[in-house]
Amino acid sequence: MGDDTGSERSETQTAIMEATYRALCEQGYADLTMQSIADEFEKSKSLIHYHYDTKEELLVAFLDYLLDGFLAKVEETDDSDDPRERLDTLVDILLSGPEKSEDFQVAMLELRSQAPYVEAYREAFAANDAHLVALLADTVRDGIETGAFRDVDPERVADTILVMVDGARSRSVLFGDSDTVAHTREAIDGYVRSHLVAGE
Amino acid sequence: MGDDTGSERSETQTAIMEATYRALCEQGYADLTMQSIADEFEKSKSLIHYHYDTKEELLVAFLDYLLDGFLAKVEETDDSDDPRERLDTLVDILLSGPEKSEDFQVAMLELRSQAPYVEAYREAFAANDAHLVALLADTVRDGIETGAFRDVDPERVADTILVMVDGARSRSVLFGDSDTVAHTREAIDGYVRSHLVAGE
Repeated sequence: MGDDTGSERSETQTAIMEATYRALCEQGYADLTMQSIADEFEKSKSLIHYHYDTKEELLVAFLDYLLDGFLAKVEETDDSDDPRERLDTLVDILLSGPEKSEDFQVAMLELRSQAPYVEAYREAFAANDAHLVALLADTVRDGIETGAFRDVDPERVADTILVMVDGARSRSVLFGDSDTVAHTREAIDGYVRSHLVAGE
Repeated sequence: MGDDTGSERSETQTAIMEATYRALCEQGYADLTMQSIADEFEKSKSLIHYHYDTKEELLVAFLDYLLDGFLAKVEETDDSDDPRERLDTLVDILLSGPEKSEDFQVAMLELRSQAPYVEAYREAFAANDAHLVALLADTVRDGIETGAFRDVDPERVADTILVMVDGARSRSVLFGDSDTVAHTREAIDGYVRSHLVAGE
């Protein structure tokens, strides 16, 4: 996993992604334009247009960049062969979100809410989500094989964990209650113990 | 609970709320204007302006109208004194959402994503949420008193249930996977059994 992470992204493209991140933090999604991204970019605006025809195309690339960032973080943090520890690590990283910045989380919630209207976004979010489901489900599958977990449906467990992650993140962005994430962490732990862990 | 539900809403105001519902289904939030609501309203546009100065003010009233609809549904459905049955009923109604229309759920997700930018929306969503937390927590509290539930933190249980409800609804809107809601219903049931129910 992750061997091709970022391999197709040039230095310029990475700089454009970083400019997009800053622009989203500054002004959210609704007012985001190619110009506002260019304003955050050190080099010429024409370079942005050279790589991305439209704002949509750029944001699809940005969602892919976020997924790569997540996968890199997983690879860096996850040094365990134990499926339960590995599952814990994935949940921790998922709950902490792609970035700590609250403005960015707000912008991402907004972008996500546009997905039903914009097919390219919808496909990009679905592709990222399928990746997360597969990562979680593979870990659950490993645990079933080693006997650490019961014979549950791995994809379904992944879906349920992601329901809790998404709910916690959207509620904490909306209501600014940081306890929600900590409570959800414990609820997921309870779910893993009561539903997955063999012998508990 | 619910004695004052809708008591302050005139027939005209209710008709404006229904027009707002149709307009949101038709075009979502981003393109919603007082004019597009007026287009769905049988009477004169000036009547809308007489009751609501701005689109924001109208949508805050609309969120209150949705909460009243939810409370009316709870009152109509909930005929049990048993705290666990009552909790089940609340979860069922919450998961089924205010309206079945998918277009409407999409529009609500969009409106919700604007809450961090618009204080009036944020306050209205927070007020509705506080109402839901109180309803759930009161039911849990009743269950603790009767001995049906363990001595848990009622508000925290309410928060965790709402995390799962919000996550399931946003994921099912975004990915169109109807299994998510059914799976989440079972996950909440598992949570209630393992975390709340005494003797299980």
